[in-house]
Amino acid sequence: MTVHIREVGPRDGFQNEPERIPTDEKVRLINALGRTGLQRIEVASFVRPDVIPQLSDGAEVLDRIDVPAHVRLMVLIPNSKGLDNALKVRGKFHDAAIFVSASETHNKRNVNRAIAETMADNDKMARRIREAGLGCAAVIATSFGCPYEGKVEPDKVLGLAERFAEAGATEIGFGDTTGMANPRYAKEFFAAALERLPGVEVTAHFHNTRGQGLANAFAAFEAGCTSFESSFGELGGCPVPPGSTGNIATEDLVSMFHEMGAETGISLPALIDTARDVQNVLGRKLTSHSIVAGPIDWH
Amino acid sequence: MTVHIREVGPRDGFQNEPERIPTDEKVRLINALGRTGLQRIEVASFVRPDVIPQLSDGAEVLDRIDVPAHVRLMVLIPNSKGLDNALKVRGKFHDAAIFVSASETHNKRNVNRAIAETMADNDKMARRIREAGLGCAAVIATSFGCPYEGKVEPDKVLGLAERFAEAGATEIGFGDTTGMANPRYAKEFFAAALERLPGVEVTAHFHNTRGQGLANAFAAFEAGCTSFESSFGELGGCPVPPGSTGNIATEDLVSMFHEMGAETGISLPALIDTARDVQNVLGRKLTSHSIVAGPIDWH
Repeated sequence: MTVHIREVGPRDGFQNEPERIPTDEKVRLINALGRTGLQRIEVASFVRPDVIPQLSDGAEVLDRIDVPAHVRLMVLIPNSKGLDNALKVRGKFHDAAIFVSASETHNKRNVNRAIAETMADNDKMARRIREAGLGCAAVIATSFGCPYEGKVEPDKVLGLAERFAEAGATEIGFGDTTGMANPRYAKEFFAAALERLPGVEVTAHFHNTRGQGLANAFAAFEAGCTSFESSFGELGGCPVPPGSTGNIATEDLVSMFHEMGAETGISLPALIDTARDVQNVLGRKLTSHSIVAGPIDWH
Repeated sequence: MTVHIREVGPRDGFQNEPERIPTDEKVRLINALGRTGLQRIEVASFVRPDVIPQLSDGAEVLDRIDVPAHVRLMVLIPNSKGLDNALKVRGKFHDAAIFVSASETHNKRNVNRAIAETMADNDKMARRIREAGLGCAAVIATSFGCPYEGKVEPDKVLGLAERFAEAGATEIGFGDTTGMANPRYAKEFFAAALERLPGVEVTAHFHNTRGQGLANAFAAFEAGCTSFESSFGELGGCPVPPGSTGNIATEDLVSMFHEMGAETGISLPALIDTARDVQNVLGRKLTSHSIVAGPIDWH
């Protein structure tokens, strides 16, 4: 059994750091990640630099990184203007991700538009992404609950997913933006998603807000999901409630899957080394478990 | 669906603190735990006070605590001498737990005896515990792997469990002493344990060493296990490898089960309050997720 893991730390993680990480360090860390066996990395976002200065060097990062040819690079695209900028460097990455929140309130607060407006723009962007010969992925935030609205109906989430698929997205990620999923629900949800989205790669993006991140990943895996996103060092994700952790740590996710006998293609020791290294860049200890415990020694 | 959770922090947690917690504080915290809805608490251990001074006040703690009548109190008994001492205060608790390691090397290092010697003593202790009218529980450490020996054969673990059951143990706990279980294995293991131990309460005791603690708990639950042990504030457990976390946090486990629709009888807000309170006693931040994130607000 093979599991696909996309490392999102260079985008989702670095974006949420209070300080802008120097471009040199980003390039060095992405190059190291690209040599761990990771086959998918989200490396940049084409957002307005005044909104997210942490990622304002996206084009430069794309230009300077040097990763093995088998590594597929993804960029996040917030709107048509961002896509314009991304397409100026279209030879530097493979996949573009567009997104929406399944919760009307969260979408409004996140991108200041109604879901209907966002999806109309997403339809156009999906077409342009495909016409540019790029892979088109879509991400649905707050798929498992919204901090403002509470419950989000799965039928609403899967309806948005079907619309993305119709627009040409070949991968759809379901984000547990503020860590509200539980493993029972995750298992049911991913079984339904896989059934309703034939031919689409269904990706799980869980947060570890209440410590259930890996439990949710296992539950989704049991339902047949084999594509996951996570962040080395447990970087990034939405710090809601304040102070809480966000993304699940890639090294913890890889550790779990390897122990279960699933293959990821990733060297866990190399990944842990890279996660430990980012602690030096950030000047603080990170919170992933495998950074401290290391891989299991089975003798 | 009801899940039974035993809080082990006052024994397993306090034992692993570098400083001895004042008896007054132990009593206060156990009394608070007893009012969260928890129905099972491990409160003391009858070990030699020169070996584990942190728990040398066990008899005094038992004498002074005041918890609701529905709370079953457990004590840990390392050997016949410890049982002698425990039976002097037999009216103060309900259940006595005896134990062994499934790994010969770990058992030797932990209690300086071979497994055969430990089990011979356990047989005798089980009889005395039952004759005293107490509940007899047994715990098998390193059930999912040993830091010295690596793999531990499940057949060996379940053989020890059957022997405990024959000796009169009505509950058998399987301890993941250094966090080597994974959810796939945990699911298979607990399915086998429940089949081989009819009429025995099968309890899962996982550690969060590599972040998989709740994933393992969910997997065991899926296999039919409904009895768990955990520690408020994520206190205690075996810090192997050095610096790593041990027990899963009771508040995170309760959060997961409540979100899944399982009942525990426990008030999560009250439990979180108690876990936050222990931070003041210890003078440091604790690492459970729910201490920071709190319960999910579904509006």
